[in-house]
Amino acid sequence: MCGIFGVRGHPDAAAVTQLGLYSLQHRGQESAGIAALDVAGQPHAVKRMGLVSEGLLEDEAELLRGGALAIGHTRYSTAGSSTLENAQPVLARSRGGHIALAHNGNLTNATELRFELEEAGAIFQSTMDSEAIVHRIARSNARTPEARVAEALQGVEGAYCLLIVIGETLVAARDPRGWRPLVMGDLNGAVVFASESCALDIVGARYVRDVEPGEVVAVDAEGVRSAFPLPRLESRKCVFEHVYFARPDSRIFGGSVDRARRALGRQLARECPAPGADLVFSVPDSSNSAALGYAEEAGISYELALIRNHYVGRTFIQPSQGDRDSKVRVKYNAVREVLEGRSVVMVDDSIVRGTTTRGLVAMVRAAGAREVHMRVSSAPITGPCYYGIDTPNREELIAANLSLEEIAREIGVDTLGYLSLDGMLASVPTGPEGFCHACFSGDYPTPPPTDPDKLRFGCGC
Amino acid sequence: MCGIFGVRGHPDAAAVTQLGLYSLQHRGQESAGIAALDVAGQPHAVKRMGLVSEGLLEDEAELLRGGALAIGHTRYSTAGSSTLENAQPVLARSRGGHIALAHNGNLTNATELRFELEEAGAIFQSTMDSEAIVHRIARSNARTPEARVAEALQGVEGAYCLLIVIGETLVAARDPRGWRPLVMGDLNGAVVFASESCALDIVGARYVRDVEPGEVVAVDAEGVRSAFPLPRLESRKCVFEHVYFARPDSRIFGGSVDRARRALGRQLARECPAPGADLVFSVPDSSNSAALGYAEEAGISYELALIRNHYVGRTFIQPSQGDRDSKVRVKYNAVREVLEGRSVVMVDDSIVRGTTTRGLVAMVRAAGAREVHMRVSSAPITGPCYYGIDTPNREELIAANLSLEEIAREIGVDTLGYLSLDGMLASVPTGPEGFCHACFSGDYPTPPPTDPDKLRFGCGC
Amino acid sequence: MCGIFGVRGHPDAAAVTQLGLYSLQHRGQESAGIAALDVAGQPHAVKRMGLVSEGLLEDEAELLRGGALAIGHTRYSTAGSSTLENAQPVLARSRGGHIALAHNGNLTNATELRFELEEAGAIFQSTMDSEAIVHRIARSNARTPEARVAEALQGVEGAYCLLIVIGETLVAARDPRGWRPLVMGDLNGAVVFASESCALDIVGARYVRDVEPGEVVAVDAEGVRSAFPLPRLESRKCVFEHVYFARPDSRIFGGSVDRARRALGRQLARECPAPGADLVFSVPDSSNSAALGYAEEAGISYELALIRNHYVGRTFIQPSQGDRDSKVRVKYNAVREVLEGRSVVMVDDSIVRGTTTRGLVAMVRAAGAREVHMRVSSAPITGPCYYGIDTPNREELIAANLSLEEIAREIGVDTLGYLSLDGMLASVPTGPEGFCHACFSGDYPTPPPTDPDKLRFGCGC
Amino acid sequence: MCGIFGVRGHPDAAAVTQLGLYSLQHRGQESAGIAALDVAGQPHAVKRMGLVSEGLLEDEAELLRGGALAIGHTRYSTAGSSTLENAQPVLARSRGGHIALAHNGNLTNATELRFELEEAGAIFQSTMDSEAIVHRIARSNARTPEARVAEALQGVEGAYCLLIVIGETLVAARDPRGWRPLVMGDLNGAVVFASESCALDIVGARYVRDVEPGEVVAVDAEGVRSAFPLPRLESRKCVFEHVYFARPDSRIFGGSVDRARRALGRQLARECPAPGADLVFSVPDSSNSAALGYAEEAGISYELALIRNHYVGRTFIQPSQGDRDSKVRVKYNAVREVLEGRSVVMVDDSIVRGTTTRGLVAMVRAAGAREVHMRVSSAPITGPCYYGIDTPNREELIAANLSLEEIAREIGVDTLGYLSLDGMLASVPTGPEGFCHACFSGDYPTPPPTDPDKLRFGCGC
Repeated sequence: MCGIFGVRGHPDAAAVTQLGLYSLQHRGQESAGIAALDVAGQPHAVKRMGLVSEGLLEDEAELLRGGALAIGHTRYSTAGSSTLENAQPVLARSRGGHIALAHNGNLTNATELRFELEEAGAIFQSTMDSEAIVHRIARSNARTPEARVAEALQGVEGAYCLLIVIGETLVAARDPRGWRPLVMGDLNGAVVFASESCALDIVGARYVRDVEPGEVVAVDAEGVRSAFPLPRLESRKCVFEHVYFARPDSRIFGGSVDRARRALGRQLARECPAPGADLVFSVPDSSNSAALGYAEEAGISYELALIRNHYVGRTFIQPSQGDRDSKVRVKYNAVREVLEGRSVVMVDDSIVRGTTTRGLVAMVRAAGAREVHMRVSSAPITGPCYYGIDTPNREELIAANLSLEEIAREIGVDTLGYLSLDGMLASVPTGPEGFCHACFSGDYPTPPPTDPDKLRFGCGC
Repeated sequence: MCGIFGVRGHPDAAAVTQLGLYSLQHRGQESAGIAALDVAGQPHAVKRMGLVSEGLLEDEAELLRGGALAIGHTRYSTAGSSTLENAQPVLARSRGGHIALAHNGNLTNATELRFELEEAGAIFQSTMDSEAIVHRIARSNARTPEARVAEALQGVEGAYCLLIVIGETLVAARDPRGWRPLVMGDLNGAVVFASESCALDIVGARYVRDVEPGEVVAVDAEGVRSAFPLPRLESRKCVFEHVYFARPDSRIFGGSVDRARRALGRQLARECPAPGADLVFSVPDSSNSAALGYAEEAGISYELALIRNHYVGRTFIQPSQGDRDSKVRVKYNAVREVLEGRSVVMVDDSIVRGTTTRGLVAMVRAAGAREVHMRVSSAPITGPCYYGIDTPNREELIAANLSLEEIAREIGVDTLGYLSLDGMLASVPTGPEGFCHACFSGDYPTPPPTDPDKLRFGCGC
Repeated sequence: MCGIFGVRGHPDAAAVTQLGLYSLQHRGQESAGIAALDVAGQPHAVKRMGLVSEGLLEDEAELLRGGALAIGHTRYSTAGSSTLENAQPVLARSRGGHIALAHNGNLTNATELRFELEEAGAIFQSTMDSEAIVHRIARSNARTPEARVAEALQGVEGAYCLLIVIGETLVAARDPRGWRPLVMGDLNGAVVFASESCALDIVGARYVRDVEPGEVVAVDAEGVRSAFPLPRLESRKCVFEHVYFARPDSRIFGGSVDRARRALGRQLARECPAPGADLVFSVPDSSNSAALGYAEEAGISYELALIRNHYVGRTFIQPSQGDRDSKVRVKYNAVREVLEGRSVVMVDDSIVRGTTTRGLVAMVRAAGAREVHMRVSSAPITGPCYYGIDTPNREELIAANLSLEEIAREIGVDTLGYLSLDGMLASVPTGPEGFCHACFSGDYPTPPPTDPDKLRFGCGC
Repeated sequence: MCGIFGVRGHPDAAAVTQLGLYSLQHRGQESAGIAALDVAGQPHAVKRMGLVSEGLLEDEAELLRGGALAIGHTRYSTAGSSTLENAQPVLARSRGGHIALAHNGNLTNATELRFELEEAGAIFQSTMDSEAIVHRIARSNARTPEARVAEALQGVEGAYCLLIVIGETLVAARDPRGWRPLVMGDLNGAVVFASESCALDIVGARYVRDVEPGEVVAVDAEGVRSAFPLPRLESRKCVFEHVYFARPDSRIFGGSVDRARRALGRQLARECPAPGADLVFSVPDSSNSAALGYAEEAGISYELALIRNHYVGRTFIQPSQGDRDSKVRVKYNAVREVLEGRSVVMVDDSIVRGTTTRGLVAMVRAAGAREVHMRVSSAPITGPCYYGIDTPNREELIAANLSLEEIAREIGVDTLGYLSLDGMLASVPTGPEGFCHACFSGDYPTPPPTDPDKLRFGCGC
């Protein structure tokens, strides 16, 4: 997954973009980058592995100062393709001058697009599917930047939110299904785009509206132009953004993430009550809202039973006699005074492989919990996501392989309850329609990527 | 403030110590270090600026592998003395061989101790008061390591929890007032010491007991020896550890931090109700328990109205047209859907200068809150701490300079309520007796440090 | 300028390449890189700014271990384009699989090639002209790797020595003029290519022959194939390689650089004697051989009057009251005991802008030299190089703007003598024919690059 | 070995010191450091592993800007003690304020001094003998800085050149034997001290005089004061400084290093001729002068047969099938055209273990030399140095264990000649008297260090 941010018309666009990326760090921690026009209108890109807060290279960042147009990107770590050459934005020079592009999402016909371009002689310098879009824009003969983008996107399938700099124009585009969120804001007259509204808040911008599925928006000195040049398709907004991925202080797809999660928790309490439980707690932080909703609806008291350590980096030296669950213990700790002798409801937003959950349950039991009732504020994940979420293969998805009872046994809980698919969709503020729930339901709106080796190429999100 | 950790008798003591320091990172983020004996019994120290998770230098860490005795330290950033030479543990070689020392706390007669040592010809290579203790141990002629420590501590005033390696003996010491916490645990037969019990949890050790005020504990191949060689004084455990500093999943001073904070919140609701308020929320994460207690006692619903960004590093590039509150916005964001149109109670554990609070209140109002009622789960801070907490000068303490009404106006709230001193002390699980509340009450159990320039020398905590 | 190295058939090709690059460091210190096939035949590239000896990133270098095919590159620092994206080798993936390319030289129709490719939709991710060659190879439909290279090079004008990996084939190519050197060697059966023979020596390889101008050599599992598919043109080997650029322990263009420089010095003594001079010394290290030749021929004693500091890095902090010549003083120092009261001949291989020479002359005079007779072992440089040497614009070339007398006055010498063009060419071991002397004579074998902005794009060498 | 530099009275003393250290880099490449007073008179020290040119940490260096008093140090890499805590200058605070010290040399009674101090309660935070001197200065009750230094040095035995900052006074001291060089210069009124005169040249200072053996010089606002408070002993200047260690552009001990080496070479030609040899060459760069002297005296032509690669860093990845001599090949290469078929004289300044020499001889033979006659411009090294040169144990010194014939066979030469002890001493410009030649003659002017473990503690030089 990735986060994208762009601004046009601000006197320090690159610095605004860097600030915006701070709020999109949860969408990708592997690498961060900014492409911007300098005061002379020349394009530059700076990228680095790691967090935005670790600092973009100072000398290079200096280059970006003072220009009015910038886009930025945070990229998620996916195994094997974690190299600087796969960091975004992509910056290329072509016939029409420079093209810089930041992409959130995953294309489903990337292999075909790549094959077609390679047949036409194109070379690829990264393993990102996003690079194919840059090639297609470069090859377009359309007259305006937005028309070139629109032409390039014909035949591109899958999930994409794009921010593209062509010349002095900033173009935003969202695929017709609208899998990933993209909002538009106003910062004292400058136009801002971001994956989530929390990035508007941090820079002090006002939310204006969502970029719509299938929409292409162009911003230049003459103003903002919108068009819908892509095929109209039924929308398939990713419900997992509401369940887990987005920040609770964001509005996405027209609704509040916090309110969605609260409703998910309440619905979960209705569907899967835990009569006789003494307390409810969340696996912090992404499940806090849902757990609070559950507690509220169930009339059981909400407690803080797990503490999360936010200082944990990406690696730590494990003692040579380390036990199996030390990885979980580095990140979480249980509060014995809350748990001891109690029958507890543990609310999490999802279970993927089940290993972390098992470690947490063991920790909760070791802290004295008498009974552990696991409640999950989404439906069981039974399939991979082809549209940008980094879920593992079906073989590793616990709910794709085990029954409810087997999962409960595997993770060591007394009872286990998942939210139903319908209950999950009904909880979203904007109603059950228009969401993608393929990883829960198997109802994939596209064929799977044809090439099983596709993932070898990494992805653009 | 600092965190300390030590272990003796584990086959990979340095790695256990590094793991333990992860859980003490909240006590100090400026620098981290480990001193350990290698497999051959030779002492080494590795230190670095920054977080434990950024990794101790690999080549040097390798030196520490496989030895059975190690101590570690995390140090808080205090302005001006933030250099590697002030990182701990201190490792020195002297007549009796090596001495390694890690210190949490602040000495109140550091200037006198230093003067006395300098008169006797001692040289100081750091600005830490801890170095004076090392000198005094080196000069002691006592026969055993613990007797040398005991002799060295005669006449040392102020706050200290110490972990000291002398030869192959690990000595733990706590000052007679017991300002700072120090717990003792057992890890499969190895003896572990840590500032807080959460560090026992992360390494999988079992809590055994607190090191008592005035106690000196020695651990060597022959076992554990305890003595009380220091003057007996009335205990003065730091109540601010319960209010703010310690982690909620820790037990310190014999009581649960989480339970203390919950009780503080409930007492706050009784003392300073907010009739008519629609909801209660906390300034995350340190105030979560107190806010929950307030909500519970007041019967007002608990909400998640502020989201904290945990990816923020120590520096960020501010846009050149940045506004005053952007520093607050990088760290926090408000959830409009929760706040809009509501009368809200915002619970924080303390107000120091008031600048962050003012920024948060502005953010909460901008998100639509109709009324903001600030409730603080401690008494007003009216004086500095001489015992290890990094509070600013009296001039910068808002409650030392303004009346309640003036503070309310300054931070922009409709009403403001602090917990009373008595209410605060009564809320601690182990009862109101034996706590230091000098920064709240002015009741300093020692004279202030004689030398006003003392702070120039930094501190050992 | 750049250095290139490649090997096929060695069980640790990347390590051999890294070792070879040590010997080509004088050809480029800005960046270094290696592209190699791993044991599984997958291509990887690692690059870094700075010297080979500063170490390629360890984790990444590990990837390259154990493969049989690798190419490497060292790149010279030219102002403005000094970024990692311009480091080589270029690694791209295309229809035919991967293409990795390392280039020494400069194309003269880079703008046209780029325009043509951009018109056909190509995108460029660097400012190197080398990237155009990669595109052209990718677009070729020829059947064999060497045929694809040959086809791609039709119409490519200017200077290039190329090492290219296509699949498991290593292709070496040299432009028809043969501006830059390229030698071929044998390392226990593995085939090695390098810019200079000194890189064969360091890896223990035996010199086999030069790659000829216009030759394309392919090496794969079946052996070595040679072809001459490019237009036959009169050769134009760069005489400045002999004068200054190559290492004296190298053989290039079939002759010894050391012997060439010795002959240049002797011829210089014949053409520009310095009767009455007490001693001869060189500006170390590139002029040592020439100065020795001069001394020998003139019968004047050879002395070591200037000492060069080899520990100087790329930057140093200049004292705020620094004088004009401190940059020269950081790199050189004069030996007073040698110079005091003497009439001296100072031999250098060339004068470009004259600023360093002026500083050196001042230093030599300050050390007591009575008379300074400057002798230059090449002809005056009056024009830029379009073929890979990083000479400045004509405006900055002292000999393009001042007469001999004016130069002597400007640099502060008593007499000044340059070698004649004919004398220079006659001194080269392989005779005066077939050399490029455009920067000395203005006799450019190609039109200048059409686009004056061309240098904006940097170069591939 | 180490290099030291200091300046008092310059408006940017730290920057001048950094520049001076560039010229003393050959005396130590392990670590570099500067201690300086800032504009407010506060002392700071910045240190780093590696070269001066790699840059002292920028933020910290900024601290040092603008003060008038600074000292600096470059330290040689000796196995096992290569850590930042052993970098110099040492900066300590004591009764009299701060003391900063930079030391070149090695104490012979370091163990006793340390024992005595430890008995008196001192603690040591490094393994450098220099730290003992700081302790002794701190303990002195004398009134002036120079008197404190003088008192501290009573009873200190062995080799030391010291630059010491006490308050605002800069003190320079040289041991009574005068083993190591120390010069004094003038930079527009500022007083400068440096190990060698080449460091005066780089900063543009004028050489004034040597600091004399046994002299203590104090520089403060009132001027320069000199005293000879130490016991008068016969001088024992290190002859190896002339032979190898110092830079040829330096004057040390009142004489020119270049002239000394030239005379050593001439004397070597007289003592050990090589009749019938075709040419003479040096092992660059330290033997260049001696080889030139040999050639001159012998009437044999001087050639450049070995080329040294100055870009080699401290580590390189050796190919897995690397041969024994690849370490030599990374640093040197032979010029076949010079050597092929010739009978050659190879001049080096010394042979320590013999391994490098053996590799060089093999390289020279592989390049075609018919006969190799090795000539060494010093006497055989048969014992360790206790006074600051990092020679290995006697067991590793080839000339301490093998006869002349055995050495010749071991290193693979046809004939081998060393300079005689008398010839060596007679060649020094200032005459044969007053030099230490203990490592050549066994005539140690002091007892060896009593504690065989002494070297465990590393050294101050």
